[in-house]
Amino acid sequence: MSVRIGLIGAGRMGMTFAHHLVNSVAEAELAAIADAHGKTAANAAAQFGVESTYSDYRSLLEQKDIQAVVIATPTNTHPEVIRASAVAGKHIFCEKPLALSLPECDAAIAAVNSAGVKLQLGFMRRFDAGYAGAKKKIEQGVIGKPVMFKSTGRDPKRTSLEFARRENSGGLIADMAAHDFDLARWLMGSEVAQVSSEGGCLVYPELSQAGDIDNAVINLKFANGAIGNVDVSRNAVYGYDIRTEVLGSEGSLIISKIRQTPILVLTRAGVTHDTVPYFMERFAEAYAAEIRDFVACIREDREPAVTGQDGRCAAAIGIAATRSLDEGRPVKVSEVEQ
Amino acid sequence: MSVRIGLIGAGRMGMTFAHHLVNSVAEAELAAIADAHGKTAANAAAQFGVESTYSDYRSLLEQKDIQAVVIATPTNTHPEVIRASAVAGKHIFCEKPLALSLPECDAAIAAVNSAGVKLQLGFMRRFDAGYAGAKKKIEQGVIGKPVMFKSTGRDPKRTSLEFARRENSGGLIADMAAHDFDLARWLMGSEVAQVSSEGGCLVYPELSQAGDIDNAVINLKFANGAIGNVDVSRNAVYGYDIRTEVLGSEGSLIISKIRQTPILVLTRAGVTHDTVPYFMERFAEAYAAEIRDFVACIREDREPAVTGQDGRCAAAIGIAATRSLDEGRPVKVSEVEQ
Amino acid sequence: MSVRIGLIGAGRMGMTFAHHLVNSVAEAELAAIADAHGKTAANAAAQFGVESTYSDYRSLLEQKDIQAVVIATPTNTHPEVIRASAVAGKHIFCEKPLALSLPECDAAIAAVNSAGVKLQLGFMRRFDAGYAGAKKKIEQGVIGKPVMFKSTGRDPKRTSLEFARRENSGGLIADMAAHDFDLARWLMGSEVAQVSSEGGCLVYPELSQAGDIDNAVINLKFANGAIGNVDVSRNAVYGYDIRTEVLGSEGSLIISKIRQTPILVLTRAGVTHDTVPYFMERFAEAYAAEIRDFVACIREDREPAVTGQDGRCAAAIGIAATRSLDEGRPVKVSEVEQ
Amino acid sequence: MSVRIGLIGAGRMGMTFAHHLVNSVAEAELAAIADAHGKTAANAAAQFGVESTYSDYRSLLEQKDIQAVVIATPTNTHPEVIRASAVAGKHIFCEKPLALSLPECDAAIAAVNSAGVKLQLGFMRRFDAGYAGAKKKIEQGVIGKPVMFKSTGRDPKRTSLEFARRENSGGLIADMAAHDFDLARWLMGSEVAQVSSEGGCLVYPELSQAGDIDNAVINLKFANGAIGNVDVSRNAVYGYDIRTEVLGSEGSLIISKIRQTPILVLTRAGVTHDTVPYFMERFAEAYAAEIRDFVACIREDREPAVTGQDGRCAAAIGIAATRSLDEGRPVKVSEVEQ
Repeated sequence: MSVRIGLIGAGRMGMTFAHHLVNSVAEAELAAIADAHGKTAANAAAQFGVESTYSDYRSLLEQKDIQAVVIATPTNTHPEVIRASAVAGKHIFCEKPLALSLPECDAAIAAVNSAGVKLQLGFMRRFDAGYAGAKKKIEQGVIGKPVMFKSTGRDPKRTSLEFARRENSGGLIADMAAHDFDLARWLMGSEVAQVSSEGGCLVYPELSQAGDIDNAVINLKFANGAIGNVDVSRNAVYGYDIRTEVLGSEGSLIISKIRQTPILVLTRAGVTHDTVPYFMERFAEAYAAEIRDFVACIREDREPAVTGQDGRCAAAIGIAATRSLDEGRPVKVSEVEQ
Repeated sequence: MSVRIGLIGAGRMGMTFAHHLVNSVAEAELAAIADAHGKTAANAAAQFGVESTYSDYRSLLEQKDIQAVVIATPTNTHPEVIRASAVAGKHIFCEKPLALSLPECDAAIAAVNSAGVKLQLGFMRRFDAGYAGAKKKIEQGVIGKPVMFKSTGRDPKRTSLEFARRENSGGLIADMAAHDFDLARWLMGSEVAQVSSEGGCLVYPELSQAGDIDNAVINLKFANGAIGNVDVSRNAVYGYDIRTEVLGSEGSLIISKIRQTPILVLTRAGVTHDTVPYFMERFAEAYAAEIRDFVACIREDREPAVTGQDGRCAAAIGIAATRSLDEGRPVKVSEVEQ
Repeated sequence: MSVRIGLIGAGRMGMTFAHHLVNSVAEAELAAIADAHGKTAANAAAQFGVESTYSDYRSLLEQKDIQAVVIATPTNTHPEVIRASAVAGKHIFCEKPLALSLPECDAAIAAVNSAGVKLQLGFMRRFDAGYAGAKKKIEQGVIGKPVMFKSTGRDPKRTSLEFARRENSGGLIADMAAHDFDLARWLMGSEVAQVSSEGGCLVYPELSQAGDIDNAVINLKFANGAIGNVDVSRNAVYGYDIRTEVLGSEGSLIISKIRQTPILVLTRAGVTHDTVPYFMERFAEAYAAEIRDFVACIREDREPAVTGQDGRCAAAIGIAATRSLDEGRPVKVSEVEQ
Repeated sequence: MSVRIGLIGAGRMGMTFAHHLVNSVAEAELAAIADAHGKTAANAAAQFGVESTYSDYRSLLEQKDIQAVVIATPTNTHPEVIRASAVAGKHIFCEKPLALSLPECDAAIAAVNSAGVKLQLGFMRRFDAGYAGAKKKIEQGVIGKPVMFKSTGRDPKRTSLEFARRENSGGLIADMAAHDFDLARWLMGSEVAQVSSEGGCLVYPELSQAGDIDNAVINLKFANGAIGNVDVSRNAVYGYDIRTEVLGSEGSLIISKIRQTPILVLTRAGVTHDTVPYFMERFAEAYAAEIRDFVACIREDREPAVTGQDGRCAAAIGIAATRSLDEGRPVKVSEVEQ
């Protein structure tokens, strides 16, 4: 039997999830859509042939035949929506990040645990064929012992100034590098113990008025002694550029896909190919796969591959790395726990 | 309103189309499945939640609420099924090739024209982002005047001996190079006027007992003077390898995608990446796109992008190239018309 | 002790050889330069610090302390210069092609054999790390049994109209594809038995006035049943583009280097790299290596790796492929022997 | 007239320079070789046909007809050899690093200035076609304003334990990242103001006994606000891996060459190519070019492109980055000046 799912938040990410729920997951049914802007919910519902729409997500939660929710609301509402969903007994898929503060993360996780529902975080890269394949190869010992983690995350343009404010996005590092921090823990098989950041507002001066930066590099020190570096940028004007490398004692793995279509153009200007425009294109299949796996977890009653705790760990690293930037010193992740 | 579609033939290709009809084309509904093996039809129907199944496709054609059919039966049945579908007033999507002989092509086209239904041939490469992008760049003049066409089509393994027989597949050249011949006409903007083949049974001796070969090269001469070459092989044991190049007076375009996942493995053995396993992976999106466009043609009452005449032209080139192999001489495509 | 070498012909290729003799071959000494244009010889001598210069190569051959000559004169003079050099007892390195006709090839080889001197032909690709490595891998069985040979040879611009005339260059196919024909025999380990060409003057109409074409494709049939195709073009305006592939029963080898410098440029225009401009850049190390090996053959009294017979075989294939173009039919290489 | 050059130090790097002086620089003559091991000097002299050899470099400096020296002795002897060479009035090419401490750097530079001779440091990457081309593109504005510098430097194996000791090599960061620090200043057009390192002895435990590490990441903060990261490793067992990227406001440049020969191997194991084995292969042409330019500076009486000051700046960054590793905090480069 299909899992009936309610979507909460029908913005850009919400619509991505709606698309995959309808088209890529045979065992799921998109049963209702809630969005604070009722008209947004209605439009989405019309597009995907969904009957129930709400402007208040709490009404959606009252719909008894809904077993699970996909939360794609603004980050600062995640804790509240997660808590309410858990209380309503719905299984929860929540877009990353879990929350902007650790107490909020803890409260959300506690609510989920207390209700006995499942919670999966939206670190979709783990479901990408490249990253999943790399994880498998590491486990097979192809590169020996992993000793260095490198990751690059670049957007082709800056965010809105509204979103850039720390109270909304957590700032560049917490927002963009969250995926890289999650990959770091997962691929290296060790927790990030300490971070050290440099950054600046170098391309979009208006971002500094919103208190944000546009470029950063973050050194990582893992609990097992391994090291790493993450760089993030908002000015990869050439495309959406996500690359990760894990260097081990016996080799290295590079996961990188910057080319979109399989055309090479050879002219007097040289040899040229295009680029992946944005995350929807780069991770289209990963978004489908993570939702599919969430639905399978419900049907098979198993724990999601990406948990609330994973969300909390990535958040903690982001908070520590942001503090490192602010204070100009290495920050232990354990410091931000206190 | 959705276009209700009946699938005729639920083998490997039929299942591919069923998958895309159900998952990738919002405006279509897979309403019935017919397969000469009733159990195959029933299994497919169960998998995709289809109610009506038939072991005789003619029964499917009697179902009034079906507007269109997707034909994925063995090639030698195409003419008959097309004719019957046309007579029944159904729009037709037919997997390539149209037919193995030109009289059969002509009869099928005539039946379609007489019934006033639409016929689209399954040359899915035209819907691939690589090939479609190349066509656009040629039209934009990026490479000037196209003067040479090169195309490589390689399967990772041989076909069954049964399929290899000329009466079933048309033989290696007609079967495998059909896509390349279609691309040749389409990308070069000129008809293929003459072909000259060399080939042999070089890797799988058992194929020669079925009267087939496993490797061939075919020179092309276009009506406008341009030239080309197509090579096909059944022994690309490393993967599914499809590459095309159009060299023009001002540059060249290469369409090639041999890599499957975005992982590079760097070890003492060198730098390695994987390969695309087979056509379902390489052209997954193209199959979805061609079916989507077929449905759109019906809804918008426009002519399909790949017509019965396109199917006939590719067949004629294949027949001429096979004759060239048999007779050891260049063969004009006009010769096989007579 | 150094091998003292005389250079005959100080044009573009002659200067390339002079450079490598002076800079890359410790065991050789460039002792004299002859060029029909005395001033050209003098300039070259000044540039490379060579004492003796001649406008008549026969005077150079009289210089007793010269053990070997490098011949880089126009092709139609090769037979005469080879014969005279052999009679003078000099070992001979001759730039490809050996000669434009088979009787001339035979006469040159006979003179060399009769004099007991060494003759090496300038098929430098065999000394390229890419091609030499591929040969080794084929011998190691990495790709199983070779069954298909593919080769692309493209110049970034047309030759002079004077050179284009068949009496000077042999025409496009004999001139450009000579290297590919040599590779075909060498890499496939089988003689080319039959060829079938298509070609045209498609980009530079003025070439047709010189009796030449600018693009051609040539199908190959090997004595052992293997097949192949060579394409050549004068209009690769994007750079110098040489690619070869050998497909075997267990894999494939691709030798291709189109990129010159290790810079990728990522901008809104996409991802771009430069191209190899011309043969001097692509094969700089191969030219040095072949001359080095020629000198080593003299010092170690061993047979050169590329012989007069190799030159004759490549010439025969070129003549047959040109006849195929002229007569519009497959031509057996044995036909042109008569 | 040729510049007569004496080589001081005939170990691995010395032999590289000897090779290029003899084979790649027409305007130079290798006139003498000194090595503390007289036999090493004699062997090198025999190989390159050099007459004078010395076991004491001071004797070489007394040879009046020598205009310049190439210093390739152990780093800890650089200051003394530079000073003596300067006093003897010889122009100086010195392999990097200039010295291990800043006072030594200052003394060497002062001696050079006082003697009025030229001093060029061996940062050969600036002469590589990739890096030189990137510098030019940055100056042309191709990527707008540079905002992030990334560089990876990896050796395929560890150094000797003797060399690894800080008093000999300066430790991993100072030794390996020196090239990257020089590139950082040069390509970004701004001084490195602050560094922050993480590192560890993760693959070769024996290195820790020599007081060294095998992997490190170093964040950079430039004087103009730009940021960067350098990673270095001794365990790239797959080959010699040098990559650099400069991200700007309008695009990015990546300089990377990991592939050695132009062969792709396609088998059931995937698609594989080889790797550059070590620095001699990767930078062969750059070594030739830097020596050629040094000779040209002498002949044309112009200032070398890479000066003693450049050597001092790279050393200062290395010292600061090593202190950052030791003290677990960001270190301003200005701190190590005091």
